[in-house]
Amino acid sequence: MFFNTLSLDEALEISLSKVNALRQSETINVKNIMGRILAADVFSPENLPGFDRSSMDGYAVLAEDTYGASEASPKELKLVGRIEMGQDASTLPTLKNGEAIGISTGGMLPPGADAIVIIEETELENDCLVVFKPAAPGTAVIRADEDFKEGELILPAGHKIRAQDIGALLGVGITQTEVLTQLQVGVISTGDELVPPEKKVTLGQVRDINSYTTTAQIYELNATPISYGIVVDQRKQLADAVSQALAECDAVLISGGSSVGVRDATMDILDHMGEVFVHGIRVAPGKPTIFAMCGDKPVIGLPGNPVSSMIVFEIFVAPILLKRSGSTQLKKFPAQVRAILGKSIPSARGRDDFVRVKLSEQGGVTHAEPIYAHSNNISSLSKADGILPIPADVEGFAREEHVVVELW
Amino acid sequence: MFFNTLSLDEALEISLSKVNALRQSETINVKNIMGRILAADVFSPENLPGFDRSSMDGYAVLAEDTYGASEASPKELKLVGRIEMGQDASTLPTLKNGEAIGISTGGMLPPGADAIVIIEETELENDCLVVFKPAAPGTAVIRADEDFKEGELILPAGHKIRAQDIGALLGVGITQTEVLTQLQVGVISTGDELVPPEKKVTLGQVRDINSYTTTAQIYELNATPISYGIVVDQRKQLADAVSQALAECDAVLISGGSSVGVRDATMDILDHMGEVFVHGIRVAPGKPTIFAMCGDKPVIGLPGNPVSSMIVFEIFVAPILLKRSGSTQLKKFPAQVRAILGKSIPSARGRDDFVRVKLSEQGGVTHAEPIYAHSNNISSLSKADGILPIPADVEGFAREEHVVVELW
Repeated sequence: MFFNTLSLDEALEISLSKVNALRQSETINVKNIMGRILAADVFSPENLPGFDRSSMDGYAVLAEDTYGASEASPKELKLVGRIEMGQDASTLPTLKNGEAIGISTGGMLPPGADAIVIIEETELENDCLVVFKPAAPGTAVIRADEDFKEGELILPAGHKIRAQDIGALLGVGITQTEVLTQLQVGVISTGDELVPPEKKVTLGQVRDINSYTTTAQIYELNATPISYGIVVDQRKQLADAVSQALAECDAVLISGGSSVGVRDATMDILDHMGEVFVHGIRVAPGKPTIFAMCGDKPVIGLPGNPVSSMIVFEIFVAPILLKRSGSTQLKKFPAQVRAILGKSIPSARGRDDFVRVKLSEQGGVTHAEPIYAHSNNISSLSKADGILPIPADVEGFAREEHVVVELW
Repeated sequence: MFFNTLSLDEALEISLSKVNALRQSETINVKNIMGRILAADVFSPENLPGFDRSSMDGYAVLAEDTYGASEASPKELKLVGRIEMGQDASTLPTLKNGEAIGISTGGMLPPGADAIVIIEETELENDCLVVFKPAAPGTAVIRADEDFKEGELILPAGHKIRAQDIGALLGVGITQTEVLTQLQVGVISTGDELVPPEKKVTLGQVRDINSYTTTAQIYELNATPISYGIVVDQRKQLADAVSQALAECDAVLISGGSSVGVRDATMDILDHMGEVFVHGIRVAPGKPTIFAMCGDKPVIGLPGNPVSSMIVFEIFVAPILLKRSGSTQLKKFPAQVRAILGKSIPSARGRDDFVRVKLSEQGGVTHAEPIYAHSNNISSLSKADGILPIPADVEGFAREEHVVVELW
């Protein structure tokens, strides 16, 4: 086994090309669908709103009856009634020339009517409606198929559902729909020095936090983490844990293992169980990252440092898990903010750097201050408001330069 | 009652000044704390990592023994053993001049040692360690209190917990902590034309989608929605529903009610039950928005159009609910992306406009195309990738102009 480290783009390209999307799906209630991924294109079963609707409070009329109306020379129409909200106006007599009927915002137009004159442009004297402005056909009318047409694509397969998508689905009466099964992601922690956070640590030991931060990041992707606990640095135990996780999960993450010994053991095991495609990525922090495929299941070895592990998850693991989960949107956090850099940051050409930054507002302008700390220090990520990526072909940024910070 | 419409800034300032944060709290397991708001400042109960640790694979040494080492003139040290991962090295004999001891990344330094020489800068011949480079004191050592110092503030009251914060808390052994109780937000739908989405609609009726999109938006804020169903447009029934919701919730949203009649009824009821501070905001869409306080509880009347309702939630309701929930971060979505505008968009001075836009990537550059549709059309929000705010003092944007789009 001999590996050259890859650039982040190369590592992502190779890894994503090996990963196939899960195809299992289930049908769920649309009210519980937030963040889930559609298994198939969804088409509208009907026109929405399904009838011509008024978009204003006013009067339904025949547009031609209002032509030429003005303050000086208003038109007079006969008020023949009022349409209630929710009333089926199709059974009303066809509106005739010279007639008008009261209607509220959202009310259904009666047969014959083709425009709304809004209340502010009229005056009512008993049952005589005085109209001061002409209305063209279609004025203040929402057409029956204006929102969705029957058979129109509402949302494509692979789309991740947002709040407004729930509105669109329920709007056309879709209350159940098919979504891809949530990804099950196994998380294995390695390291003889690790103890669970609720246990007492003795000198030389540290609490396992990577498996919990990784778990939280998996939840944020709307996938289901399955923890396999802390495995001691012994080849057989690690191999057994990986086998079990592969049998039960759709993807496996091996967290921790910062020492060369654990990394070597992980490499050996993955090389025997499957094929290793990435061993080392030219990013800082996060270089000692491993990507392997065991059958159709991706297995990723994460760096042992908490900061490296979390950043590698954002920039490398998230797109892989999103592709595996069937999502067509492979970027997890497009959330960016522009900021002015408070200090210059040098960066080595040929390596993608991800610098922790603290943001502050000064006179309506966002400023970013780099946080320098060892990637073992979780405090630096908790103090950070975002990450400033420095691409491999950029030799750092100057003080006062405008930069784009990824929030998280 | 006479109201001038307010600017968005004025409406937010008045409303936020009336709202007090909920102070009820509960103690929960840190593993379940994602998105919750801290009730109090959290301080570190101990130093982290708690002992001097190696940040590399190599050998613990007395730095002074390596001074002057070079390829041409290496220094020789006696290897006296190896520190295992997780081992309490404080009980080892103090490392003496001329000695070195093997150590892995994350291992604990023994007494006497003050630097690590990394494995790549050494050669081992039996128990003779040849060192080719000098190490200054502290080289590759993570100090005992470098991550967190005992008594240091980890996170302030009002902070919303992210994945990395879970790592910081668990890292210092905090497994339970006090968070503010999740906000209970009542949602009342009004409108005689509305039917629940699972029911069959007849002509003239429409499915109630606003209460579900609002519910999804409340969940996104990590608050708990409580639905009071669809209330018909009758004053007594609406008043009863508002009373019940006020008794059971921390804040109440009245959704729908697009017609003047319902708006008037809502205004009357809120004016009797409490005090109305905002009636109409100079935003498009979203003008017919009401803000009232009933006792210490904010009540907001949302516009009836689905698009208006969702946008008003993002720009006006979310900050109010976040302040009420005790969060110190009042902006819900700071997620922005810069884009080039595909069409010019005119906008009236004196009004904040929020334009739905569709984003696309063309040659690595993000383009934004405005979506023009009636604010009754939910399809336009489902097709949109984001919202382009046009501030009141800007008369629109020109084609090809660089703009900042808020994602959602």
